[in-house]
Amino acid sequence: MNTPERILMGPGPSTVPQRILRALGSPTLGHLDPRYIEIMDETCVMLREVYQTKNALTFPVSATGMAGMECVVTNLMEPGDEVIVCVNGVFGTRMVDVMQRAGVTVHRIDVEWGRIFSDEMIAEAVQQHPQAKALAIVHAETSTGAHQPLEEISRIVHASGMLFIVDAVTSLGGHTLKVDEWGIDAIYSGTQKCLSCPPGLSPVSFSPAAVEVIEKRTTKVQSWYFDITMLKDYYKGSGKRAYHHTAPVNMIYALREALAMVLEEGLEARIERHAVLHRRLRAGLEAMGISYIPESSLHTLNCIHIPEGVDDAEVRTKLLETYGIEIGAGLGPFAGKAWRIGLMGHSASQANVDLVLAALKDSIG
Amino acid sequence: MNTPERILMGPGPSTVPQRILRALGSPTLGHLDPRYIEIMDETCVMLREVYQTKNALTFPVSATGMAGMECVVTNLMEPGDEVIVCVNGVFGTRMVDVMQRAGVTVHRIDVEWGRIFSDEMIAEAVQQHPQAKALAIVHAETSTGAHQPLEEISRIVHASGMLFIVDAVTSLGGHTLKVDEWGIDAIYSGTQKCLSCPPGLSPVSFSPAAVEVIEKRTTKVQSWYFDITMLKDYYKGSGKRAYHHTAPVNMIYALREALAMVLEEGLEARIERHAVLHRRLRAGLEAMGISYIPESSLHTLNCIHIPEGVDDAEVRTKLLETYGIEIGAGLGPFAGKAWRIGLMGHSASQANVDLVLAALKDSIG
Repeated sequence: MNTPERILMGPGPSTVPQRILRALGSPTLGHLDPRYIEIMDETCVMLREVYQTKNALTFPVSATGMAGMECVVTNLMEPGDEVIVCVNGVFGTRMVDVMQRAGVTVHRIDVEWGRIFSDEMIAEAVQQHPQAKALAIVHAETSTGAHQPLEEISRIVHASGMLFIVDAVTSLGGHTLKVDEWGIDAIYSGTQKCLSCPPGLSPVSFSPAAVEVIEKRTTKVQSWYFDITMLKDYYKGSGKRAYHHTAPVNMIYALREALAMVLEEGLEARIERHAVLHRRLRAGLEAMGISYIPESSLHTLNCIHIPEGVDDAEVRTKLLETYGIEIGAGLGPFAGKAWRIGLMGHSASQANVDLVLAALKDSIG
Repeated sequence: MNTPERILMGPGPSTVPQRILRALGSPTLGHLDPRYIEIMDETCVMLREVYQTKNALTFPVSATGMAGMECVVTNLMEPGDEVIVCVNGVFGTRMVDVMQRAGVTVHRIDVEWGRIFSDEMIAEAVQQHPQAKALAIVHAETSTGAHQPLEEISRIVHASGMLFIVDAVTSLGGHTLKVDEWGIDAIYSGTQKCLSCPPGLSPVSFSPAAVEVIEKRTTKVQSWYFDITMLKDYYKGSGKRAYHHTAPVNMIYALREALAMVLEEGLEARIERHAVLHRRLRAGLEAMGISYIPESSLHTLNCIHIPEGVDDAEVRTKLLETYGIEIGAGLGPFAGKAWRIGLMGHSASQANVDLVLAALKDSIG
């Protein structure tokens, strides 16, 4: 394998530390080997810590981030159910699509891409659609950098008896995220963002209320691969480990190592590191006259306007070829108009912040 | 990471060579990095060679083997379609389940677990259900060792205008398998069997006829994650690479290396190696008075009767703890009655065959 040196400061994957790559390349064990089962159990224990939850049903789905969304949707919802989906970027839009493919009637509420939802909008939607089974929202919109507060929304959603579904792909391990305290019923994330593990797994967690809903289903989950009614016997480990599918053994090694690194650093210290470096990056960019898109406030994903007269692709190519730095292009209404600079996990270092500022200064000219 | 030394001679994963583990642990690139796109394209080119196909739509699904089954089923079939599924073990049984979850009416034909289907049975089923859109069959039943001939069945299926779906999880890279010559319309496999790559990807291939069927769908594919109408823009690379999901970058490195090793050895030489070592194992077992279950004729998966009076779990535990050898337990009607010895990819060596024979002799007493 011959790979160029890269500093990954796009929307993910982030740069993977050597220690995690070494764990990834450890000898493959059988997926029912007693030692592998231990490794998997240790992974789930640490995942609960990082998600700040006691949820028994917390495990990594054997596929990348979007599979976590599909796993949550296809297990919680049944054909004919109704749901409220909040759309302010790519991932809310996708949630609508995934819900509809599962036969769910979607009540979609929108704010402009990049903006966040007010408590009032959520309260109004919940009042208009009291029969909805759940409300789904994105905590950290990777496409725009919007950082959605969740605590008050959770109260509104639960007061109406709905389940609360959260997309945390770009926040887990980089922003404060308290699954139990915030009353989140179902949540999914990816490994390749703030955990700095390679892409390939999607950590999910389900509250006891969500598990009860799944157990009361009257129809089969439309996806066999993501069917939690079967998967839970493998991951929860109550009694015999029922074989479901062959687990991606080496990816689990990597995730275990990545979670260990999060806990060694300390979750709060890690979140503070992301905050500090975000402020440093923001100050540097603003000093260069580069502005953030309105309400882009995530620390982990910085969505900035491309300065007037600057060629989008040309600059990104120069960053990649001269500096080995990857940053992300804009999506949707921001295509050609914005860049996305990721500060996630291992990529969030002072050296990287100062380098990307210098490289941008040089490339914009 | 602290993993015990193992020789993987179960139903998969097989032992992964150091060279592939090193490729797996190479630095993670972005999934849209030009160099990563090259690596992915190289992987797909080699995958076509190993599948012996010119099918443009040949790529690894970003999840383990069963995801390949789900990808094939959910893309080819629409709710209300009919299908004939041949069941002679675990994977045929699962195919029925996956089909039904996709809203498909299944006409199931059965032979005893371990047996194979005769051309006459297939002809009769096709005649009885001429309206079926496809017939699905397992080439290499991992649960029993049954090795299903496909050429004549393919002719029968195509004569009736149906699509021909094949499960090749335990044959790709270990048994003769000619996708184009045998007229297979949709096929899936796993990486962790005869390719000796870690589990985590499911190589699939679709014929032009299958692609046409997918393009004429009137309903959306129920799975977003497995939806080929979107995925093909990423993998076929016609024009712009449309981002779909974040690819499991490091797993693709490993698969590329695994396929390179298959082609360096030579596909025919590799298949012959599996045949020779199967015969050596069979002769050794039979000399010990251990018999194969009827019609277990796969070279890659050897399903043998547990001798009278021998404790199943005790022997497998001794093999694992004393010799580091993993073999597989029996499934379904063979639970507690049979063992499954895998000779797949890197695990298929003369040293391993002789060692497992010696270890069994010692453990059975």
